[in-house]
Amino acid sequence: MKPTLPKGTRDFAPHQVLKRDHIFSVIRKVFTSYGYAPIETPAMESLSSLMGKYGEEGDKLLFKVLNNGDFLAKADDGALTDRNSDQIVTSISKRGLRYDLTVPFARFVAMHRNDLQFPFKRYQIQPVWRADRPQKGRYQEFYQCDADVIGSESLIFESEFIQIFDTVFAELGLDVKIRYNHRQILLGVAQYANIEDNFVEMTTTLDKLDKIGEQGVLQELDYRGIPHDSGVKILELIQESDPAVFEEKVCTTDAGKLGFEEVNRVKSYLSHTNLKNTVILDPTLARGLSYYTGTIFEVESTETSMGSIAAGGRYADLTSLFGLPDMSGVGISFGAERIYDIMETLERFPKEVSNTLSALILPMDAESIDVCMDLARELRERNVSTDVYPGPAKMKKMMKYANARAVPYVIIIGENERVNKQYMLKKMLTGEQESLNFEHLIAAIV
Amino acid sequence: MKPTLPKGTRDFAPHQVLKRDHIFSVIRKVFTSYGYAPIETPAMESLSSLMGKYGEEGDKLLFKVLNNGDFLAKADDGALTDRNSDQIVTSISKRGLRYDLTVPFARFVAMHRNDLQFPFKRYQIQPVWRADRPQKGRYQEFYQCDADVIGSESLIFESEFIQIFDTVFAELGLDVKIRYNHRQILLGVAQYANIEDNFVEMTTTLDKLDKIGEQGVLQELDYRGIPHDSGVKILELIQESDPAVFEEKVCTTDAGKLGFEEVNRVKSYLSHTNLKNTVILDPTLARGLSYYTGTIFEVESTETSMGSIAAGGRYADLTSLFGLPDMSGVGISFGAERIYDIMETLERFPKEVSNTLSALILPMDAESIDVCMDLARELRERNVSTDVYPGPAKMKKMMKYANARAVPYVIIIGENERVNKQYMLKKMLTGEQESLNFEHLIAAIV
Repeated sequence: MKPTLPKGTRDFAPHQVLKRDHIFSVIRKVFTSYGYAPIETPAMESLSSLMGKYGEEGDKLLFKVLNNGDFLAKADDGALTDRNSDQIVTSISKRGLRYDLTVPFARFVAMHRNDLQFPFKRYQIQPVWRADRPQKGRYQEFYQCDADVIGSESLIFESEFIQIFDTVFAELGLDVKIRYNHRQILLGVAQYANIEDNFVEMTTTLDKLDKIGEQGVLQELDYRGIPHDSGVKILELIQESDPAVFEEKVCTTDAGKLGFEEVNRVKSYLSHTNLKNTVILDPTLARGLSYYTGTIFEVESTETSMGSIAAGGRYADLTSLFGLPDMSGVGISFGAERIYDIMETLERFPKEVSNTLSALILPMDAESIDVCMDLARELRERNVSTDVYPGPAKMKKMMKYANARAVPYVIIIGENERVNKQYMLKKMLTGEQESLNFEHLIAAIV
Repeated sequence: MKPTLPKGTRDFAPHQVLKRDHIFSVIRKVFTSYGYAPIETPAMESLSSLMGKYGEEGDKLLFKVLNNGDFLAKADDGALTDRNSDQIVTSISKRGLRYDLTVPFARFVAMHRNDLQFPFKRYQIQPVWRADRPQKGRYQEFYQCDADVIGSESLIFESEFIQIFDTVFAELGLDVKIRYNHRQILLGVAQYANIEDNFVEMTTTLDKLDKIGEQGVLQELDYRGIPHDSGVKILELIQESDPAVFEEKVCTTDAGKLGFEEVNRVKSYLSHTNLKNTVILDPTLARGLSYYTGTIFEVESTETSMGSIAAGGRYADLTSLFGLPDMSGVGISFGAERIYDIMETLERFPKEVSNTLSALILPMDAESIDVCMDLARELRERNVSTDVYPGPAKMKKMMKYANARAVPYVIIIGENERVNKQYMLKKMLTGEQESLNFEHLIAAIV
């Protein structure tokens, strides 16, 4: 039987796991320093919790898990006769795989509301699954790294999230641009162009400006029933080169005034902070997701053109889907897969991160194995990752293993070394060799 | 809509995630010190990689994922007409959820054989899914923590795994008994009782000795076609109270002699090691899994009667399932869920492990928020997990939040503090309060 993996899924070799963990640890450390605490939710949610939350397209991309046992016994008769796949699903499947971390988070908060303290600050780093057509850089299983605070309208959290973006990417050694905007500013733009009733259509279309350009946006606005004049007015306004002029014009509307009050408050909270990356208000930033109601964020690498690598925003009413209304919250998400690809391309992973072994001990004869194991125990007790080669074996073979594992220190123990209690230490990077007693050997490595 | 979870699945609140992570970190640290490197495999495997690997019962307990799109179009016609659930599965589902980490590991090694260095030492800490009937302490999603080395017959690894068991449980603060045996010793027992041809039946039955007792074992051996006399002889032998007598008798057989040669070698490798827990050869230890061929291990807590909390053994031929024959290996697995339950019952989790917040800063008025955020930034840069309460709010409300989050330090900043640059630090454990300048405040907390 030839071993294979389902399309769109991946194995991770040790160096990949360790590099991925490096990204997760930095994010986790920063989340923790800002008082966010980890939660975990199960891979499988009730299908009823997931269906209808991601639009019609999303429903199709959900992985559904077959009921166990005689599932056809309870299958919908009509759907079975008609061979209607869409219609039969809910009668043969009651579980689905997590599609993102936002809906499970909303479900978690609604379900455990009586055990939680609000504002509730949680982070969550777990895989999600989507039946997207696999392609380069897009997988059916991938990690999301989310932090959300729910149960407070305070703008302190918006300013903290900007600091979190800034700190995480500085610690990862990546240069980024943090763009933000406010849904009320966008609503102000819609009011300014007299198309307030088409607000959703406007933001959905503006979200594509990067991809389809001005002409594309104008065409799509037109197609969505927004007058050409209004379209032109919108594009002119959001691309106004003087920020002061933009603010002045938008603040002639009620919504725009409110939006600017909020973003100016966020800015003032940040005024004492030395941010390492560029942070700018970008009126063209729209974010497609309809649940955002306040400040929205998007972060991109300035060193590559990989698109958004982190994003987020404030929502007024996420948990009402699960029967808990009026809980304002704000959250962000890091795109770990893209961050990985960028760090790999730019060679930003610290070298020591993917080290799987610090010392390898080679027994030259069977009688030396005990001494090798004693030494290994001493090193391991000092948290030095140590291997005893299951020898004796040919030197060439053992050194090949040492090189393949990229181990910095090799210790060779044979009869001579055993009897004289002097051990041969070889530094693999330089090729240097020296004969050391036990104490000096330990000191040289630890 | 009332939020619910599928049966047998769980949410983990922050204190649970942090306690679970404590167990995983200790295991990960020890695995790493012994030169094991992490791999990860996808949650979904090809159903063909999983089916038939866990017996008929296992096939039923696999979670199968529905194909996306119009899956009924390709459904088996006969099975559809007959409403035969078992028969239709493979035509509407080609993916299944990981049932354990051993089969994915074998698939991984066979698939990546050309990129791996042998002996290949890997560890893997990931969730698995089984459609078992949910009951107390048994879940449909749970974590396994495995380490395996494959591509070497050296007994160094057996002795290292005993040290790994010993070190992990010592670091977790649990007292355990590490029992081991050898499949060749068991084969020797079968030879001694002249029932070599019934070896598998014998081990499968002996594996239940703890549960069904001597009479139960005798009855089942009888039922499986093993003569009553042989059954009595087997039970007498494996329960022989003098280890020397047992060894002498078993070593009259070929297999027993070989088995004892190996376990004595393992013992000699351990002779210089100060183990903290009891390690004993237990001839009644059988381990149900049929792929074990050499030394087998089982670890139980001496402080509770929870059964096995870690186990493992050597196998001669795991990867031949995936077309890679003759790769001897040995591996172990920690039962993280049971270890968690025992540590919770015995209150062995260090208190600081489940701390989610170290300092909470309370603004007494809106004007103090900037100062609060400045101070928070300073603390966070020193890796102190810090929250600014999104106030101002009533003192009672803010202190309720502080207590609920079990934060050790609360810092109160109002007009007085702001103007005099003296901050009120309250130590929550003692109730003590003092007014400190910035440097002293930082020093008191960090």
